[in-house]
Amino acid sequence: MINGDTRIIAHVGYPTTTFKSSMIYNPWFDARGINAAVVPLGVKSEDFGRAFPEICRFTNFHGALITMPHKVSIIPLLDEVSTAVKVAGSCNAVRRNEHGRLVGDMFDGEGFVRGMAHNGRSISGKTLLVVGSGGVGSAIAASAAAAGAAEIAVYDVNAASMEALAGRLLQNHPRLKVSAGSNDPAGFDVVVNATPLGMKAGDPMPLDASRLSPSTYVGEVVMKHETTAFLAAAKARGCATQIGIEMLFEQIPAYLEFFGFPATTASELREVAEVDY
Amino acid sequence: MINGDTRIIAHVGYPTTTFKSSMIYNPWFDARGINAAVVPLGVKSEDFGRAFPEICRFTNFHGALITMPHKVSIIPLLDEVSTAVKVAGSCNAVRRNEHGRLVGDMFDGEGFVRGMAHNGRSISGKTLLVVGSGGVGSAIAASAAAAGAAEIAVYDVNAASMEALAGRLLQNHPRLKVSAGSNDPAGFDVVVNATPLGMKAGDPMPLDASRLSPSTYVGEVVMKHETTAFLAAAKARGCATQIGIEMLFEQIPAYLEFFGFPATTASELREVAEVDY
Repeated sequence: MINGDTRIIAHVGYPTTTFKSSMIYNPWFDARGINAAVVPLGVKSEDFGRAFPEICRFTNFHGALITMPHKVSIIPLLDEVSTAVKVAGSCNAVRRNEHGRLVGDMFDGEGFVRGMAHNGRSISGKTLLVVGSGGVGSAIAASAAAAGAAEIAVYDVNAASMEALAGRLLQNHPRLKVSAGSNDPAGFDVVVNATPLGMKAGDPMPLDASRLSPSTYVGEVVMKHETTAFLAAAKARGCATQIGIEMLFEQIPAYLEFFGFPATTASELREVAEVDY
Repeated sequence: MINGDTRIIAHVGYPTTTFKSSMIYNPWFDARGINAAVVPLGVKSEDFGRAFPEICRFTNFHGALITMPHKVSIIPLLDEVSTAVKVAGSCNAVRRNEHGRLVGDMFDGEGFVRGMAHNGRSISGKTLLVVGSGGVGSAIAASAAAAGAAEIAVYDVNAASMEALAGRLLQNHPRLKVSAGSNDPAGFDVVVNATPLGMKAGDPMPLDASRLSPSTYVGEVVMKHETTAFLAAAKARGCATQIGIEMLFEQIPAYLEFFGFPATTASELREVAEVDY
């Protein structure tokens, strides 16, 4: 129950109709006896530059979740951003630090890394191929680099986007081995499809699955179908796989920790959530 | 449970710690199956002029409750204000009308008039003495004038405040009989203490209760004690009385109607409220 002492986490984006976070975070706050609430605030692009600084000045502002269409345009409004934001080129979580400065972070890719950990795997010291260098692919590359991946290869049909991601990885992780230009999965420890291919029936494969090694751990970001054609092909090759929705489950504890709340697990959150997710 | 379709009523003021409205409105919205929520937003005076217009532009903004210290400074930020706002000189409820214009109203005094109705009385055609011309006294005078009082006398130890209220009453209700300068209650149909006198032990009386006629209906705005010394003296004179808290109970249905929600009663609201009020 919201009252005058409730710490507000503004969920800022537009349109708000599809927002689900309040139905995941708020029941967990209730269950844990934490007086905080996620509140959707619909802000259009043309208003964001004026509105966001005012939202952050609300005296009961605790932080913000930033979603479409503001994940990129928020960056110049912040005082500090994490390396993950610099690599991903986007930001979706903001809090005020102990010096009153607005700091931004990005945990979309953290869900992939935590999903691996949940399945008993670590990205540390491993080689990774990320196919798709859009928002989610960039975020996965950012989190994998931060978690100690030894080598990251990026691929996208949009060469400019792919090269830009490779450049941001090199600039922020000088000791990381980075390559760009091929979607051949042969020999990688971890391969992830971060393209939308697989959402629609008849979509082409994001890469040639016959080139997957059976020892490769294969991930997916498409959530529309639990087992996409790509994951099915990977399984047929004998690969261990990670479904798209797992990334979503696993990232929320990372956001809660960023906002200063106690550690939790994806399963604890799902148990109390008022929405299927 | 707040979601992406929830209509947000921003409760704007500072500090927010004492805010109670969310605990009264929100359980009622839940009970009625209305997807709306009052959300406290702490805004300091120095930020209000910038922040308030942005709040009103949130795409899920449904309206705002305005409290200290912004009830006066909000007026120039609105497109239209009610006569009650013009008389009271303050505003505490804002909504967007069907033309997208921000309209302000003031219902603090409406609680007094509805409290009378609840007790089977009407202010229409009656004579009223309001002692105290601050925010609440001005609001009561405004609502009584709108509800058809025939004559309103105002009194305050602050002569400038008293004269200003009398002027606003005359300007907005040209046919109303208005006087100022005496707190003698003799002969009035209705008398209300709208000063803080009675909050502290040993406070002087707001007026000479021995001059009350037994037929006078006597109201109080002090809520700290249910039966103040003034109300006790009025009862001793044989007067019918109205306690301070009743004004608070009765005003909330007026706000809900202003925001376009179905009619309700103070007792229905109190039954589901998560706070004693």
